[in-house]
Amino acid sequence: MHGLISLNTFEKKDIGHYLSLSQEMGKNLFSKFNTHGGKIASTLFFEPSTRTNLSFQAAAQRLGMGTLDYSHATSSSKKGESLQDTLKIVANYSDIIIIRHPKEGTAKMASQICDIPVINAGDGANEHPTQALIDLYTIKKELNKLEGLNICLVGDLKYGRTIHSLLRPLALFNAEITLVSPPQLRLEAKMIDSLKSELGAQISYADSIDASHADVIYMTRMQKERFSSQQEAQALRALCQLTAQMLENAKKEMIILHPLPRLGEIPAEIDSSPHAKYFEQAKNGVPVRMAILHDCLTK
Amino acid sequence: MHGLISLNTFEKKDIGHYLSLSQEMGKNLFSKFNTHGGKIASTLFFEPSTRTNLSFQAAAQRLGMGTLDYSHATSSSKKGESLQDTLKIVANYSDIIIIRHPKEGTAKMASQICDIPVINAGDGANEHPTQALIDLYTIKKELNKLEGLNICLVGDLKYGRTIHSLLRPLALFNAEITLVSPPQLRLEAKMIDSLKSELGAQISYADSIDASHADVIYMTRMQKERFSSQQEAQALRALCQLTAQMLENAKKEMIILHPLPRLGEIPAEIDSSPHAKYFEQAKNGVPVRMAILHDCLTK
Amino acid sequence: MHGLISLNTFEKKDIGHYLSLSQEMGKNLFSKFNTHGGKIASTLFFEPSTRTNLSFQAAAQRLGMGTLDYSHATSSSKKGESLQDTLKIVANYSDIIIIRHPKEGTAKMASQICDIPVINAGDGANEHPTQALIDLYTIKKELNKLEGLNICLVGDLKYGRTIHSLLRPLALFNAEITLVSPPQLRLEAKMIDSLKSELGAQISYADSIDASHADVIYMTRMQKERFSSQQEAQALRALCQLTAQMLENAKKEMIILHPLPRLGEIPAEIDSSPHAKYFEQAKNGVPVRMAILHDCLTK
Repeated sequence: MHGLISLNTFEKKDIGHYLSLSQEMGKNLFSKFNTHGGKIASTLFFEPSTRTNLSFQAAAQRLGMGTLDYSHATSSSKKGESLQDTLKIVANYSDIIIIRHPKEGTAKMASQICDIPVINAGDGANEHPTQALIDLYTIKKELNKLEGLNICLVGDLKYGRTIHSLLRPLALFNAEITLVSPPQLRLEAKMIDSLKSELGAQISYADSIDASHADVIYMTRMQKERFSSQQEAQALRALCQLTAQMLENAKKEMIILHPLPRLGEIPAEIDSSPHAKYFEQAKNGVPVRMAILHDCLTK
Repeated sequence: MHGLISLNTFEKKDIGHYLSLSQEMGKNLFSKFNTHGGKIASTLFFEPSTRTNLSFQAAAQRLGMGTLDYSHATSSSKKGESLQDTLKIVANYSDIIIIRHPKEGTAKMASQICDIPVINAGDGANEHPTQALIDLYTIKKELNKLEGLNICLVGDLKYGRTIHSLLRPLALFNAEITLVSPPQLRLEAKMIDSLKSELGAQISYADSIDASHADVIYMTRMQKERFSSQQEAQALRALCQLTAQMLENAKKEMIILHPLPRLGEIPAEIDSSPHAKYFEQAKNGVPVRMAILHDCLTK
Repeated sequence: MHGLISLNTFEKKDIGHYLSLSQEMGKNLFSKFNTHGGKIASTLFFEPSTRTNLSFQAAAQRLGMGTLDYSHATSSSKKGESLQDTLKIVANYSDIIIIRHPKEGTAKMASQICDIPVINAGDGANEHPTQALIDLYTIKKELNKLEGLNICLVGDLKYGRTIHSLLRPLALFNAEITLVSPPQLRLEAKMIDSLKSELGAQISYADSIDASHADVIYMTRMQKERFSSQQEAQALRALCQLTAQMLENAKKEMIILHPLPRLGEIPAEIDSSPHAKYFEQAKNGVPVRMAILHDCLTK
């Protein structure tokens, strides 16, 4: 059963396929709303989320589908039901399942026990493939290319599942990747090694954000739980914070992305900068997820 | 971007426009349901509410729209996201936003940062314009006129945002307005003064409800938080409570309204009286809100 | 106003009517989705539930309807509103109401004060008629008959409302009924007496599950609240638990049902048995509830 669990096996053409379809969806959010009328998309979110859950619901509804929102809090899991049983039951009511879960590998497990397509909306610190496709779509739309980008990834690279899903496609398209993060939030070495050996990825660390060479600065949020004290949090956040001054030497076309929600890592004063594209990026969530839903339902 | 934040700038013709459109919607709740297919209405309620949130969702769905319900409790605001960011994100997924917030002026703020229409579903003690339009629609429908009414407003006039939105239109249509409320829940004097000087409004206080002259008795709920003690609450609530006896001298056509939910201010025994129109009023919420949504989406 | 509160007055032909209509819905879940476009089904669940609430929402959406989900937690009942008022208001926004409530008789009460159809989705330990129709539909579909079945009902027969709704139809179709339950969870004697005297029902108790003669083994969950201690729970649950070994002497066609969620009464290893039909049963919830909704809305 076709779904979307990981980008690990994606080739350039697979990404290209999704980006073209997303573009088509973006052109007319309403034109295809009849196609999937009467079908049902169910969101099962075992972690809090606004944007991912709502944007999947928005995408499904724009395709004419109904939506069921499984709320962890008021569910049969209170009655002691296993996750496997819950998944089988909800799959019985639905045409496609979108799942977020704190434990790595849950989406894959779900896809093995459900006989309908399953979309991974984030499994622990592992992957968040639909966000990565949104990021790639936004880059392509804004810069009109994906090949050979200079991209700087900033913040929580260790737990940031978006980063984990995004790195491989970036390497596929021969990006020059610079990483900026506090020591305790660095990418695992084996992930970097594997990208270098498999794809010849160009990845290096820098001590601070240097906007002058970047085509893309990709910011992420660092949760307070990652730090041992308030002081440490403050010190290390300063390292991974963007300032208006940093943008003075930026290339004219450089774009700033962020999967959102943000804390202080992008000050609100930057929102009005022509470089700021993170709200555009959020908006692109709808057509890209329309494309993913449509593709999973028709393959 | 056209929305509905306040009735403060409304002229008679603006009200007339909404009431005609509501009447059309009321005639056939299903006839127009295709018009807005594939579009999405998002409700953002930062205060508990049953009827307003559900009746907006009902109105949107009867127009063929999808709905997203932003639940404050399970949202990214837990992750420290600002209200402004949340609004921008949800606006990116939606075609129209309906917002309720405990702080005055939030709806206006939202309409300034979102590039889609925003409807004020209550901002603190300030305004609740869609409820006021429902009230006016119900009066027009039941009494077949809006001009020169004798109306008695009872209860919490200080914090009652419905009252604040309703007073100006009533004055516009030259109503004779009698107010009944405990001393600490009276309207702010400057609001009365401004209505008198701007529109020549006829507003006066009375010590108790006198049903004999009224065309409309408009009841409101007094929350226990407004009183310093249980005893005070009991004493002052008695003043603002309707009884079957009071209705004996009422005009045959007199109608009783209430924005609901009610506590004891209208005893259940009055529900079967021909004067009781508060459930009709609640029902009118759907066509009036269909009219408002349709109008905001097509202007 | 036609609704579905109880199966108590149902004759064989009424059940046959629902099963035929369910079969038609099951053949093509999407074909009829336009029929009820623009109409609204509201679910009012005053007890936690996943499957019943979601499967009603799925059924309504597959018929093209919109859905409103009244969440007890964030509602006006917090403001002190009576259940009666809440029901009247929600009915004003809706075309049909589906209610679950911990108190017996609530669905009937609701049907008396609402002027739209009301469906009972469980009222205390009383009835759960739509689940019973799903059970009957599943039996008919799997065994191709309803008449003269040998059926064994296991577990919490005292509080199990599904059992209470299912017994009478089983007796109508001349089932031979065996009951297995801990002493404190037995059916009330007067219920058995009434089925015997009214319908000549064949009902008897057994000490343990004997799969060798059964056409249907119907398992139910026993909640820990029903037992005085952990030890008691363990001992009595063993009595009402299915094992793979028990199935060795079973008839080839025998089916195992369970309204779900389950705890340990059916071990996961049985899921792959050809006898296991409880997930099929859950899946049948959608077409059967589509049939019920359609029927209530068109009668």
